[in-house]
Amino acid sequence: MSVEIITIGNELLQGLGADTNGPWIAERLATIGLEVHYKTTVGDDTGRMAEAFRAAAHRASIVIATGGLGPTPDDLTRKTIATVFRRRLVLDEAVLDNIRARFRQRGIEMPAINEAQALIPRGAKVIENPRGTAPGLHFTHLESNYFCLPGVPSETRAMVDHYVLPFLKARSIAPPIDRRIVRTVGIAESTLAERLQALEGEETGIRFGYLPHSNGLDIVLSPATAEVAWTREALDRTERRVREIAGRHVYGSDRETLSSVLGAALVERKLTIATAESFTGGAVGATITETAGASRYLLGGVIAYSNRAKQELLGVRATTLERHGAVSAEVAEEMAKGARDRFDSDLALSSTGIAGPDGGSPEKPVGLVYLGLAMRDGVWTERFILGGTRDEVVDRSVAYALDLARRHLALSPV
Amino acid sequence: MSVEIITIGNELLQGLGADTNGPWIAERLATIGLEVHYKTTVGDDTGRMAEAFRAAAHRASIVIATGGLGPTPDDLTRKTIATVFRRRLVLDEAVLDNIRARFRQRGIEMPAINEAQALIPRGAKVIENPRGTAPGLHFTHLESNYFCLPGVPSETRAMVDHYVLPFLKARSIAPPIDRRIVRTVGIAESTLAERLQALEGEETGIRFGYLPHSNGLDIVLSPATAEVAWTREALDRTERRVREIAGRHVYGSDRETLSSVLGAALVERKLTIATAESFTGGAVGATITETAGASRYLLGGVIAYSNRAKQELLGVRATTLERHGAVSAEVAEEMAKGARDRFDSDLALSSTGIAGPDGGSPEKPVGLVYLGLAMRDGVWTERFILGGTRDEVVDRSVAYALDLARRHLALSPV
Repeated sequence: MSVEIITIGNELLQGLGADTNGPWIAERLATIGLEVHYKTTVGDDTGRMAEAFRAAAHRASIVIATGGLGPTPDDLTRKTIATVFRRRLVLDEAVLDNIRARFRQRGIEMPAINEAQALIPRGAKVIENPRGTAPGLHFTHLESNYFCLPGVPSETRAMVDHYVLPFLKARSIAPPIDRRIVRTVGIAESTLAERLQALEGEETGIRFGYLPHSNGLDIVLSPATAEVAWTREALDRTERRVREIAGRHVYGSDRETLSSVLGAALVERKLTIATAESFTGGAVGATITETAGASRYLLGGVIAYSNRAKQELLGVRATTLERHGAVSAEVAEEMAKGARDRFDSDLALSSTGIAGPDGGSPEKPVGLVYLGLAMRDGVWTERFILGGTRDEVVDRSVAYALDLARRHLALSPV
Repeated sequence: MSVEIITIGNELLQGLGADTNGPWIAERLATIGLEVHYKTTVGDDTGRMAEAFRAAAHRASIVIATGGLGPTPDDLTRKTIATVFRRRLVLDEAVLDNIRARFRQRGIEMPAINEAQALIPRGAKVIENPRGTAPGLHFTHLESNYFCLPGVPSETRAMVDHYVLPFLKARSIAPPIDRRIVRTVGIAESTLAERLQALEGEETGIRFGYLPHSNGLDIVLSPATAEVAWTREALDRTERRVREIAGRHVYGSDRETLSSVLGAALVERKLTIATAESFTGGAVGATITETAGASRYLLGGVIAYSNRAKQELLGVRATTLERHGAVSAEVAEEMAKGARDRFDSDLALSSTGIAGPDGGSPEKPVGLVYLGLAMRDGVWTERFILGGTRDEVVDRSVAYALDLARRHLALSPV
């Protein structure tokens, strides 16, 4: 069973929004052994939408489309399905009642334009939408299955989990696609690839993928063929070797993040943490809180953007600021110490730097970043010169800050 | 000239990464009047990559592909081009010298695997890569132009701006695609669509697009046809009417963000701001600092995750915490006041809430959020019950917090 995803919406082709449904659906399909072979994106145009459905009909036995089911005139999926698969649109009274009821729940009258959402291509089954007004559609054509879902991510996800996956799982005989992700930070793609080259030569049954992010590099290991018997063992073995070779750069696997790994280490050792942030403006704290249950270890933080805040809230000395400047190892050190004292935490992380695009000088260029970590037994600082846009400099600094704490916890007895 | 984008990479079909190159390229092409009609995503598989290039060859005169040009064995674009367009791969010594020089600059020897990046399909022009080792490729086939670029976003972007756009612009006679984006926050899609329905009926030459985000809803106005003469005037008129109808929900247009709009208002009125965040963990501060030059108005903030931090750093009273709980209008109010006092700022924003997935109760469910704003002439709080995941609750709360300050600045003389 080969799968094609069609994502529909002008915004996806105009640079106004990235498609998050496609990747999410692909990941869920992998859990029941289904691999996506193509993803096509088209705008809200019946001609091009029809061409996309026709191309998919040739090369896939399962087609999942998202978008174009809303109530507004740029929602054209129903009309396109009617044309391509020659099915008349029929008003479904039960669906209409459902939509009306949903509005009533929220205390408002159904706008008349929502009536269009109750038009169903003849013979299609309606997929219930637990989160919104747009019903989904499921129909078969020449033995292929078509699922049309709304584009709003929370609605798409609920309908994939409640309807599409159970339906396909009951008909699929494939085992889940086994895949290992080794997550690293602080090492360049080609450096790591070079170190893994010999291993790649040995493990010909395993496919090595390299996936760089702004805050790290993932190594994705997957079976090169559909032979399942030996796969698990080969993946286990290869994953172990990759972890050895990448060494201290490895922070986790699969869906683990620096935030979740650091959080787990803090919980395990019953330690608390605080932050003192300058140019990252709260992003270190916000990233730590991405992990549910962060209140068990994050006590709080200070966003000290101005020098005065650095002095008054964190106790950074005026002479240190004058002598070394706000962007310096000395200030990073005093910020981390100050936050640790202020919150009475076991660890404290600090950041000071120049995110750009302005504010750089020959001695202190844009991208210059100092990170600090205060623990009971000492204070450490690290210096980086980071490339990229303002956002990328912040993203990378946040990753390096969390990693600084992670590495020290792994090494030190505290 | 119709354009197709092909994005290549297993990760894009496995849920490991969203494609950011496609949207970015589409947006740049619109500035020279070129519209993307299809975007196809395929994995690192020569068979499916070949099928994607063949399909594009049928329906587009400009094809831009990203990915698959790296040095590792899963980089298959060069090989696929060689097969589909019947061009032998030839080692280009000048390109190889360039790659070697780039490594030398960084003080390291070129890993042997990077040699593959100097293999160029016969007759293809090499597009210089100012940011990395992977050169791009440009060739023509049956009068269509093909551009192959690496997948790393900063490299792709530099090569599009330095080579692809200038090349296409010199050959395009289309005017830039005129498009207006009216950005709103705090109003539901179908409610606004209903209010705009009459206007949509009048302005048949304008296409209305509705683009919901986790932190707001954009209305995208674009010409429905290629007739240029009257377009500008009709867009101006329609945009004005949309702004009137959406009223106070409109915060900006095009690329403006709540962060940039709030920042501009603070700069214009020479006001400063501070933050006091509980469950958002620094995300309000981090969002304010996304705008370059935020140091002109952001003094700093306190991340008060623990109750003790709320009391000690922000002066929230123990009796208030006991009587109303940490998630309450009263605590939001005292947090905002406390931050304003502490930083001596003109405005202060506060947040307290339950992001989930755990920690809710019947009286205080997951998604319950209080936001506070302290100004010279008073303190305001707002209460929300927000749906969605932990991340979505935080994203929405940050947007509503910034909007709270924006609306009060627009109304009040300060």
